[in-house]
Amino acid sequence: VESLLESIPNDELKDKMLVSAIKGVLPDKQMTVSQYLRLYKEVPSEQIATITGPCHAEEVAQEKLSYLTFSSPRLEMAQQLGRFFHCHYVQPTCTTDAGGAEMGAVLKNVYALAAGMAHGLGYGDNFTAVLVANAAREMQAFLHTLDAHPSEVLETTYLGDLLVTAYSQFSRNRTFGAMVGRGYSVRSAQLEMGMVAEGYYAVGVVLALNEARKQVDMPICRAVHEVLYQQGDARSVFAGLARQLS
Amino acid sequence: VESLLESIPNDELKDKMLVSAIKGVLPDKQMTVSQYLRLYKEVPSEQIATITGPCHAEEVAQEKLSYLTFSSPRLEMAQQLGRFFHCHYVQPTCTTDAGGAEMGAVLKNVYALAAGMAHGLGYGDNFTAVLVANAAREMQAFLHTLDAHPSEVLETTYLGDLLVTAYSQFSRNRTFGAMVGRGYSVRSAQLEMGMVAEGYYAVGVVLALNEARKQVDMPICRAVHEVLYQQGDARSVFAGLARQLS
Repeated sequence: VESLLESIPNDELKDKMLVSAIKGVLPDKQMTVSQYLRLYKEVPSEQIATITGPCHAEEVAQEKLSYLTFSSPRLEMAQQLGRFFHCHYVQPTCTTDAGGAEMGAVLKNVYALAAGMAHGLGYGDNFTAVLVANAAREMQAFLHTLDAHPSEVLETTYLGDLLVTAYSQFSRNRTFGAMVGRGYSVRSAQLEMGMVAEGYYAVGVVLALNEARKQVDMPICRAVHEVLYQQGDARSVFAGLARQLS
Repeated sequence: VESLLESIPNDELKDKMLVSAIKGVLPDKQMTVSQYLRLYKEVPSEQIATITGPCHAEEVAQEKLSYLTFSSPRLEMAQQLGRFFHCHYVQPTCTTDAGGAEMGAVLKNVYALAAGMAHGLGYGDNFTAVLVANAAREMQAFLHTLDAHPSEVLETTYLGDLLVTAYSQFSRNRTFGAMVGRGYSVRSAQLEMGMVAEGYYAVGVVLALNEARKQVDMPICRAVHEVLYQQGDARSVFAGLARQLS
């Protein structure tokens, strides 16, 4: 994505309405797509919108009722997009909390990795519920540091998106996490899946953002990072994580 | 349970510490177990404690790590219980929010019924995530009306318990709801399961409690009640519910 975006001359993006449906980060730049568009492509935030979940594309393709979130600092732009996508199986939710929606979508992939790892390690549904409830609180704490008008994590845009990714069989991040939890190396899991789970790149960016501002405690993100990047043994990292959850 | 409780002379309960692990209601009395103990058995609330989830008993039996909630208006009593159950697979959480924890456990069964019905009707993971996020908000609104010190629904005691019941294969309430969603009559589903899902009785009590105080909008509880008690056609009731979710 990054080299593709770089190849577009900034002039061509002038006065264009840009819509990102990417729930990941640009790993080399350590930022989200809309941050990149603003900083490197000089696109004013009022021209940028994002489409987020809770939504697996597979179910949209099957025309199963899905509620998509359209966000932009300019509400009319979010609403225009919402009207465009609205149909009998797509119910739009429009919000001006573009930064929160985009970051929530990035974070939830990290938590889905964690849920997958726990599953792969043999933890059950009881523990997964504790992990996901703690993830919701970790997400809330992080999102509250982003903005003067904090997002409410119980909204469908955040909690719904977290749930659909942490619990669904369609989730690539959960699947990837489960393979690592079962003992695959990161590289073997990537090779076997034939793709990279977005949460793999996201976790470093999230922790770097949080570190730069030394804001909130993120034990779940730290545990995922330790397993994926610091050769942490998943079993002992999660035993340590379990002691920090409540 | 009710006739069993009735058979115990009130005198025998004097100065006893009573612990309820029931996540249901007494249908004839339209109240929770601890409400019944206070009102009919004259047990002071300081002598009553409850054990709630997030927890499927099946996984505790398998010694899978589970976080149980011990609650009592008297914190020392909750902590004493917590210490008693604490072991390598039971991690206690102790709280004085006894009323909220008990009512949260009752409510989550109704929402698990709703999640099961949606599944049985053919809705997918995307919709379930929306439904459960809305259920968390509906639970929060209801719990906030119970007490001057409202419970925080993002806590594991509430959200974790909701998730484990709404998403787990072990959930009787979800299974019962799924059968009704697939077209079984309430009676056939009960006969086939050989037991009654607690949420079936709970939904009437919850709505009656809410109605008596005319407090919050509970579209999910109302939809479940309409299907189970008012011969509502599950498909059209859920189509109507979907329009009220966001």
